[in-house]
Amino acid sequence: MKKVAVLLSGCGVFDGTEIHESVLTLLCLSKAGVHYQCFAPDIKQMHVVDHFTGEVDAAASRNVLVESARIARGEVKATTELAIAEFDALIIPGGFGAAKNLCNFATNGSECEVNPLVTDFINEFILAKKPVGFICIAPMMIPRLYPHGVKGTIGNDSDTAAAFNLMGGEHQVATVHEIVVDEANRIVSTPAYMLAGSIAEAHSGIEKLVAKVLEMTDAR
Amino acid sequence: MKKVAVLLSGCGVFDGTEIHESVLTLLCLSKAGVHYQCFAPDIKQMHVVDHFTGEVDAAASRNVLVESARIARGEVKATTELAIAEFDALIIPGGFGAAKNLCNFATNGSECEVNPLVTDFINEFILAKKPVGFICIAPMMIPRLYPHGVKGTIGNDSDTAAAFNLMGGEHQVATVHEIVVDEANRIVSTPAYMLAGSIAEAHSGIEKLVAKVLEMTDAR
Repeated sequence: MKKVAVLLSGCGVFDGTEIHESVLTLLCLSKAGVHYQCFAPDIKQMHVVDHFTGEVDAAASRNVLVESARIARGEVKATTELAIAEFDALIIPGGFGAAKNLCNFATNGSECEVNPLVTDFINEFILAKKPVGFICIAPMMIPRLYPHGVKGTIGNDSDTAAAFNLMGGEHQVATVHEIVVDEANRIVSTPAYMLAGSIAEAHSGIEKLVAKVLEMTDAR
Repeated sequence: MKKVAVLLSGCGVFDGTEIHESVLTLLCLSKAGVHYQCFAPDIKQMHVVDHFTGEVDAAASRNVLVESARIARGEVKATTELAIAEFDALIIPGGFGAAKNLCNFATNGSECEVNPLVTDFINEFILAKKPVGFICIAPMMIPRLYPHGVKGTIGNDSDTAAAFNLMGGEHQVATVHEIVVDEANRIVSTPAYMLAGSIAEAHSGIEKLVAKVLEMTDAR
């Protein structure tokens, strides 16, 4: 049976993983009869956002691995625990956690760096030529990890697309119902809540992304 | 267009709303073309559980409304903000938050009490004869809110079922794929993660629950 790793970045759209996107990813994997294992880096979140007021709670501090465990119902591992041979693919949901904790695109834009633990983790999949799916804002890590000219989408926001290209990627505009595939680099991306007006819309693109990632594991 | 209220109890299976159950509920509503509004009581959580270790973090304190906002992407209202005329139905996902924050079944068993803010909120739906769906452990509130002999399910756990009956309910055994309907009291319940071995299994029962609750709104 296939097994897919899912990389989380906390728990909550404004400072962690986008909860709907991650749960929809797990649902699509489970319905396809595929096992999954959630991972997260054992690091402090950039900050904690009160999701009711939208304000940063400067007095609070939370850990990405510990908060990610909420989405994983306790079943999450630190990125350093990866045994790459067990896995067929990786999927990375979005949310500001992807741009604040996994990398620092939220603060540094096209000058962003991917967290070293996250780089090490994703690189294991890249080196093993295993497909990786990037959802929502997570594709902003693609140009930092793959060769010049790599293709991906964050939807249609022109500033974000420009940053993607400035880092060496070739951004492709896509709707919420579409995926963008870079066959050579074995990458799939979809805009999800970069564009989604409802959870059903987010589901539409994520369902296609999961199906394509699983299809790519057959082609190895 | 129909509009359904969803009552949350925090964010995370061990001290708040079961995240998968709540997101699956929102997905099913959204796919049915139904609007939803999340609500939560503005109260402190009973406690905070580190979901990675499973241990209570005695130094931490979180608010149910603020944490529920993570699942709702910020779009959550306090239970006291309910305008009942706007809504056709209510659905209450499970997780320990339902048994620790909405009521105190987790600590008091069949002697449990429902939080007064929660009682006031749910009673508005009961008084208006609007259907209510209870998922997972949330049905343990049913005998406290509805007349003697009311029917519901928490799956097949004999101790929990006995407590349901001791409080005046008539527990019905159900599988993870089934719903139990009390037509007279306009209630639907399903076991979800009381029994689910996977998120796809939880989805199976929740999909049926949402469909039945929506069907009941047609029959008003």
